[in-house]
Amino acid sequence: MPRLIHENFLLGTSAAVRLYHEYAAGMPILDYHCHLPPHQVADDHRFENLTQIWLAGDHYKWRAMRAAGIDEHYITGKAGDWQKFEKWAAIVPLTLRNPLYHWTHLELNSPFGISDRLLNSETARSLWDECNAKLAQPEFSARGIMRQMNVQLVCTTDDPVDSLDAHRQIADDTTFDVRVLPTFRPDRIFNLSSLNDWNDYITKLEEASGVPISAFEMLLEAIKIRHDFFHANGCRLSDHGFGQFEYSDWSRKQVENAFEVLRCGNMVSPQDRIAFQSAVLFEIGRLNCERNWTQQLHIGALRNNRTKLFKTVGPDAGADSMIDGAFAVPLSRFLDALDRVDKLPRTIIYNLNPTANDVLATMIGNFQDGKTPGKLQFGSGWWFLDQKHGMEQQIESLSNQGLLALFVGMLTDSRSFLSYTRHEYFRRILCNLLGREMETGLLPNDFELVGGMVRDVCYHNAARYFAFE
Amino acid sequence: MPRLIHENFLLGTSAAVRLYHEYAAGMPILDYHCHLPPHQVADDHRFENLTQIWLAGDHYKWRAMRAAGIDEHYITGKAGDWQKFEKWAAIVPLTLRNPLYHWTHLELNSPFGISDRLLNSETARSLWDECNAKLAQPEFSARGIMRQMNVQLVCTTDDPVDSLDAHRQIADDTTFDVRVLPTFRPDRIFNLSSLNDWNDYITKLEEASGVPISAFEMLLEAIKIRHDFFHANGCRLSDHGFGQFEYSDWSRKQVENAFEVLRCGNMVSPQDRIAFQSAVLFEIGRLNCERNWTQQLHIGALRNNRTKLFKTVGPDAGADSMIDGAFAVPLSRFLDALDRVDKLPRTIIYNLNPTANDVLATMIGNFQDGKTPGKLQFGSGWWFLDQKHGMEQQIESLSNQGLLALFVGMLTDSRSFLSYTRHEYFRRILCNLLGREMETGLLPNDFELVGGMVRDVCYHNAARYFAFE
Amino acid sequence: MPRLIHENFLLGTSAAVRLYHEYAAGMPILDYHCHLPPHQVADDHRFENLTQIWLAGDHYKWRAMRAAGIDEHYITGKAGDWQKFEKWAAIVPLTLRNPLYHWTHLELNSPFGISDRLLNSETARSLWDECNAKLAQPEFSARGIMRQMNVQLVCTTDDPVDSLDAHRQIADDTTFDVRVLPTFRPDRIFNLSSLNDWNDYITKLEEASGVPISAFEMLLEAIKIRHDFFHANGCRLSDHGFGQFEYSDWSRKQVENAFEVLRCGNMVSPQDRIAFQSAVLFEIGRLNCERNWTQQLHIGALRNNRTKLFKTVGPDAGADSMIDGAFAVPLSRFLDALDRVDKLPRTIIYNLNPTANDVLATMIGNFQDGKTPGKLQFGSGWWFLDQKHGMEQQIESLSNQGLLALFVGMLTDSRSFLSYTRHEYFRRILCNLLGREMETGLLPNDFELVGGMVRDVCYHNAARYFAFE
Repeated sequence: MPRLIHENFLLGTSAAVRLYHEYAAGMPILDYHCHLPPHQVADDHRFENLTQIWLAGDHYKWRAMRAAGIDEHYITGKAGDWQKFEKWAAIVPLTLRNPLYHWTHLELNSPFGISDRLLNSETARSLWDECNAKLAQPEFSARGIMRQMNVQLVCTTDDPVDSLDAHRQIADDTTFDVRVLPTFRPDRIFNLSSLNDWNDYITKLEEASGVPISAFEMLLEAIKIRHDFFHANGCRLSDHGFGQFEYSDWSRKQVENAFEVLRCGNMVSPQDRIAFQSAVLFEIGRLNCERNWTQQLHIGALRNNRTKLFKTVGPDAGADSMIDGAFAVPLSRFLDALDRVDKLPRTIIYNLNPTANDVLATMIGNFQDGKTPGKLQFGSGWWFLDQKHGMEQQIESLSNQGLLALFVGMLTDSRSFLSYTRHEYFRRILCNLLGREMETGLLPNDFELVGGMVRDVCYHNAARYFAFE
Repeated sequence: MPRLIHENFLLGTSAAVRLYHEYAAGMPILDYHCHLPPHQVADDHRFENLTQIWLAGDHYKWRAMRAAGIDEHYITGKAGDWQKFEKWAAIVPLTLRNPLYHWTHLELNSPFGISDRLLNSETARSLWDECNAKLAQPEFSARGIMRQMNVQLVCTTDDPVDSLDAHRQIADDTTFDVRVLPTFRPDRIFNLSSLNDWNDYITKLEEASGVPISAFEMLLEAIKIRHDFFHANGCRLSDHGFGQFEYSDWSRKQVENAFEVLRCGNMVSPQDRIAFQSAVLFEIGRLNCERNWTQQLHIGALRNNRTKLFKTVGPDAGADSMIDGAFAVPLSRFLDALDRVDKLPRTIIYNLNPTANDVLATMIGNFQDGKTPGKLQFGSGWWFLDQKHGMEQQIESLSNQGLLALFVGMLTDSRSFLSYTRHEYFRRILCNLLGREMETGLLPNDFELVGGMVRDVCYHNAARYFAFE
Repeated sequence: MPRLIHENFLLGTSAAVRLYHEYAAGMPILDYHCHLPPHQVADDHRFENLTQIWLAGDHYKWRAMRAAGIDEHYITGKAGDWQKFEKWAAIVPLTLRNPLYHWTHLELNSPFGISDRLLNSETARSLWDECNAKLAQPEFSARGIMRQMNVQLVCTTDDPVDSLDAHRQIADDTTFDVRVLPTFRPDRIFNLSSLNDWNDYITKLEEASGVPISAFEMLLEAIKIRHDFFHANGCRLSDHGFGQFEYSDWSRKQVENAFEVLRCGNMVSPQDRIAFQSAVLFEIGRLNCERNWTQQLHIGALRNNRTKLFKTVGPDAGADSMIDGAFAVPLSRFLDALDRVDKLPRTIIYNLNPTANDVLATMIGNFQDGKTPGKLQFGSGWWFLDQKHGMEQQIESLSNQGLLALFVGMLTDSRSFLSYTRHEYFRRILCNLLGREMETGLLPNDFELVGGMVRDVCYHNAARYFAFE
């Protein structure tokens, strides 16, 4: 029976095999950016079946199913879990060459330990039964999977108004030693696409911070209070999502006025809107620097393109794609604005459209300061780029324009407890690439040198870079 | 003597060899987009010599000749056919690594059956004589070549005012069983670069449709009449060419007013111009959906860059190149505008600038509707991208961001009866790529699975996708 | 001990080995664009130590050191030369996969003849001593190195107000037969980022030309006088640097008015600024054509991004990166404006952002005129793209969209006498690529044909293309 995953999957040379097995495979997982629901860790969630852990919430698979002509009833609709799985299994063979095909079989292999079958209509029932039986065992609870996968620490993604109760519950539980830290994601503070939603959100922020927010100064005060609160709960990263990245110079007065207009529910001019958003971004950057945090910028998603789907299923439903357009100049101005006042924190920039790879890989070089090694980072292939070609392109740009050896490496960015093999995938791809170059003479045939770099990129760089306690 | 084309040309692994010869090579050709002159099929045209069939009208070769320093006299000028061929032959060795080098020798191999010589100054005369002798035989008439090349169906590209006489003549001829269908290409209806030309064209459209076009409503009526006429003549595709793709929201009243101004020969504001063009594009999209047609968008050509050449030789003379600039947002709005009212037809989007590959490959995923498998398609490498690297990039983007398995595959987009080996070229490239991945373990080593995908992409998907009768 | 550089470094097939050693390696070096200080050639400069010849002025290395966390004290600060070298050596292992790693060891190998060690902290002292001893020998003076490296001609980059004394001194010295010619780089004539600096510069131009420049006409007269002066001193190229490339139609009257406002120290509107810059660019293009020069356009650098570094170290300090944004339309208009009046000179266009590779590679095809073979050139991978991947991408785009066989090939673009192995690097990369394609059947297995192209690209094309006396 044809197989896909085996010990040396993706490892095309003997140097790659040695790099992977001797240097990469044993490294723990430090997953510094993900979207796991922390309460599922706090409650040590058990998953009823494969559909619950694998298909619910996975808009990658939803897109593939829609493209294959599967009715929404079996995707986000009311069909039963087995029906949904059956439909998914039937179209898996159509995902050949899509990362879903590799991911699917990597995940069946680990943690489920199944590599003797490929998922399709014929094997659907046997895999469903076998995996569901495993999911009923304690090693396949949320925490069980994290332990199996050698996870050391994860950073979830959290709203500034979040209570962080789940994070504290996990931290207080001495029986579980994987660290689960929050990340400060304040996008809603400057998302003005709906003024009503924004004002409602600012009111929530008032409640969470205890600060009445009637002026820009009070907004900053509220942000600082929540930033402090997150810091006290172990948070050491912020995260910011952008479509088209915008930044402009701004004056405090301009922003104060704009805030008041907005807070009254009235829209401001595009210039004042950008000034307001720039000011908030700048001030959070400054807080990050002062608290020794790392800021993450995710640039380039064009979201909710299909109105019908947005109205019926909502956001994050699989109707997002890449934006195009220039942003080198505003990005430079943002980083420089912080750097000029010595407030530029460590920064990781991820881009969705790979045409910006070299722009970013050269941009970060401008602001390396000779103090923190690898202070500015070009983040690993994100979302649509989280696949072999995308990762190789990111590694290529970063290598040519910067220092791969200082790269903080992979992260899952995932909502699923089954995504930890993304680290394995990255490590195999990295070792395959480096091993090939050792064998073709592009790199010295020196395992200590190259293997050391592998270990750094797979784990040690991240462990050193972030200021986790 | 050095050769280039042989049985296993481009097939780098034994898996590739098997995929190509067992799965791809025997598939018929369904050439759903080309620019063949239908009257040459209707009349079963005979070509006098290689220059007539190979160089006349081929702006790819013209560009190469100009770049090589060949005087225009030998390109589009009054030099004799042999003189032109001699000049072309002399510079063929300078096209090494350009697709022209592969195309040239693929075409000499098939249909001419010559693979023992490379074209250059030394071999020019013998190849001229040998090919011209073959062109004098009935198997090398327009129809003869199509039969030799296993062509099943072609779609030409036609103006809405065209009588489609040639298409009917072919359809009525029971001795010829290759189907030759028209495609509705209404670019001139919204090309406002010359208002005089546009108004003249609208007048022609009045004549063709029998509708006096004094208001936007009548324009739509005339379009519908011609759309119906094309449908009755077997047409199932429309095609639309864009430089920078633009689309904006529009109101019926705005467009009606703009049309009246334009019809009087006066230019409107850029906003009103785009609104008018958007409205026409939308309305044709709606017609396409209602008639179960497929619409094609060709995006990104910057045309007629060299004024001197445009004035002397005209358009399509080899002075076109790639445009840059962002278009994800307007493209999304156009597709969504149709989708919101359930009128989005099957759509194939081709781009000229490969930096947009991933933008398109992710954009189509937004609008897959779970009803028609592969409803939105990212079209095969077009024009400047119709070469090995360009096709591989398109396959890579489509694979990573969508479902390669549902791809409707290759088309010639050609003005020449000698271009059918473009399908062979594509098939070899596809099989080479898939075969290598089978052998390196990126794909399962399962010929039924991968070979089935090859057959689908080479033929069956297109046969299923289009609604040809 | 692990090594990197050897006879067949980068040559992955036996065809590549043969192409390189039999066709490429022996070709002289014609370095038609560099930034060497001509006075160091005139004075036959001796370098005190490796830091002086290798680190001083090398902002590539500075960027890498800053990224690695080396304090500015050891980069552009007051640390001693050995201290700086020691710091550099320590971080060289972190540059694995960056071109610096290959460049470093290529340069140690040639001219220093050292390939038995890799540079790192352990080998730093021995390499410092050994190289410094060689630098003390006459074969390692500025001229000595040029002779060792088989350099035939170099073109430096010079300001129109330069006296060219050093160039004349070299030309008059009959003991040195490497030609060192100036290049006309008039960027400061239309750089309006500081009006004060610009006006000061125009005053310098008055002095150099003897023309009082109070009107646009006189500016053109002054430019022409300096252009003539450069021509008399052997100059045959101009060079122009751009961030975002801009060009607009302009009228003489508009530009005359704008010039007067500017010359009085007042800024003009963006439209008038672009019109003025367009006019100067056009007029210099016209002069170039009339004098049979070649113009070079370097497009896409976003300079001096980090204000703090600019204030302390100045420009060209390692805080430059790639710009994004569209420029196909204005570039087309600029080339067409000259072509329409038969004044388009030979032109080489280099781009910094590789997303524009195909735009440029197709753009040049528009203006090939059938008179000068390869008249328009897509320049070799520049700055951030001057590395294996960047060169391969440029070769790929040029090959697919134009004629690689007419490419004028490599240049160092360097400030250092140690950069001549960039030509070796390019040649190995080119031969590796072509050799692989000969062995995989993409190219005919014909050494006369392919080897001839190698020789042309490495030397003969440039020797034929430029109008050096």
